[in-house]
Amino acid sequence: MSHTVFEISTHGQGLYELTDEVARWVAGEGQLEAALTLIVQHTSASLLIQENADPDVQVDLKAYFARLAPPTSDPSMSYLTHTYEGPDDMPAHIKASMLPITITIPIISGRMALGTWQGLYLFEHRDRAHLRRVVALLR
Amino acid sequence: MSHTVFEISTHGQGLYELTDEVARWVAGEGQLEAALTLIVQHTSASLLIQENADPDVQVDLKAYFARLAPPTSDPSMSYLTHTYEGPDDMPAHIKASMLPITITIPIISGRMALGTWQGLYLFEHRDRAHLRRVVALLR
Amino acid sequence: MSHTVFEISTHGQGLYELTDEVARWVAGEGQLEAALTLIVQHTSASLLIQENADPDVQVDLKAYFARLAPPTSDPSMSYLTHTYEGPDDMPAHIKASMLPITITIPIISGRMALGTWQGLYLFEHRDRAHLRRVVALLR
Repeated sequence: MSHTVFEISTHGQGLYELTDEVARWVAGEGQLEAALTLIVQHTSASLLIQENADPDVQVDLKAYFARLAPPTSDPSMSYLTHTYEGPDDMPAHIKASMLPITITIPIISGRMALGTWQGLYLFEHRDRAHLRRVVALLR
Repeated sequence: MSHTVFEISTHGQGLYELTDEVARWVAGEGQLEAALTLIVQHTSASLLIQENADPDVQVDLKAYFARLAPPTSDPSMSYLTHTYEGPDDMPAHIKASMLPITITIPIISGRMALGTWQGLYLFEHRDRAHLRRVVALLR
Repeated sequence: MSHTVFEISTHGQGLYELTDEVARWVAGEGQLEAALTLIVQHTSASLLIQENADPDVQVDLKAYFARLAPPTSDPSMSYLTHTYEGPDDMPAHIKASMLPITITIPIISGRMALGTWQGLYLFEHRDRAHLRRVVALLR
C-alpha cells in the first residue's frame, strides 16, 4: 500500500496526458495485483480515460464540452448566477460534475489494465494556467 | 475493513452535503491509509464531489442539469416513452447516468484526500421527498 | 484477491446487461467483504448502473444520449474533425467520456451492494458489432 501526488501544470482548457508518469510510479511500487485510485483535488478539472492514438479526438472532446457548457457570458447561460470568478468558472464546475473527478483502475501483473488505445488524462476546464494536484493510492 | 450505510432524507431536486457525516465515520474507523467506496443504491440520485464554498454553485448545477434533461412534459422530450412514474422520473434516470452513482476516495493519514474546496454531496434528481441509502466500504 | 475478464458481444448501440454474469463470478470467489472494480478496455463503450425493471428506461437512455451527441453527419456536429472512423465514432468517444468507463462496487456479505432496481450494463456506443472486454478486480 502506498500513495503519491502528481502535479500537473496546465495552460488553458484541454487534455493533458499523464499515462506514462502514472505507469512509471505504479511499476516502481512493484505491486502485481492492486487497485489504483486517483482523485483530482479540484472542482474545475476532471480525470479522463480516452483515446491516445489520434490527437483530433482530444481537440473534438474539448470543443464538444465547450459547447455543451459554454461560458456564462453566452446568452444561453444567462440564468446562471455564479459568475464572479469569471465566465469560464461555472462551466468548469459543470464539466467537473459530468466528467470523472475520481477513477479506479485495476492493476494486473503490475500494470494498469488499460486497453490498447486508452490513455489517462487530466482535463483542464479553466482558461488560465493552473497547477493541479492528483492524489494516487495503490492498494 | 468495515462498512456502513448512510441514510439521507431529501425533499426535492438539489445537492445534500454529507461530507461531515462521512468524515466522522471514517475518523472513527481509525484506518490511516485506505480506499473509501460509496454507492447510492438508487437509479435517480447521484454522488458528487463539488465546491463547498459558494452555495450559488449548487443552485447553478441544479439549474443546468434541469435544463439539460428537462421533464418529459417538456415538448423537447416528447420522444421519451418511460413517463408513467411522472415527468421528473426519466430525466432523473438520465442524470443518474451522467453523474456518478459510485465513487472511490483515497484515505490518507486517516482522512478523505479531498481538496480544500471539495465537498461530498448526494444529488437528488426527483421532485418528491425520498430516503436515500448510500453504502460505504472502507478497506 | 482475484481478477477475470468478461467478454460481451454487442450488435449496435444500446445497453447489454451483465449483472448476473458478474454476480456469479463474485459469488464463486467467496470473498465476503471486498471492492469490485470494473473497467471497460475501450474508448467507445461505457459501464452503467441503471434501472433493471422497465426496459423502456434503457430505450430512452439510448435515445437521449444519441440526441445529446448525434452522429458527425448531423449538421450540428459539423465542427468536429475526427470523422474518418465513421459518423458514429466521435459521438461514441464523447459518450464514453460522459458515462463511466470504470466503476467500483462494494461487496457486502459476498454480494454486490446494489439497490433493488439497479442492474449493471455495458453501454455500447458504436453501430457495428463489437466484442468488448471488461476487466474485473476483486480485492
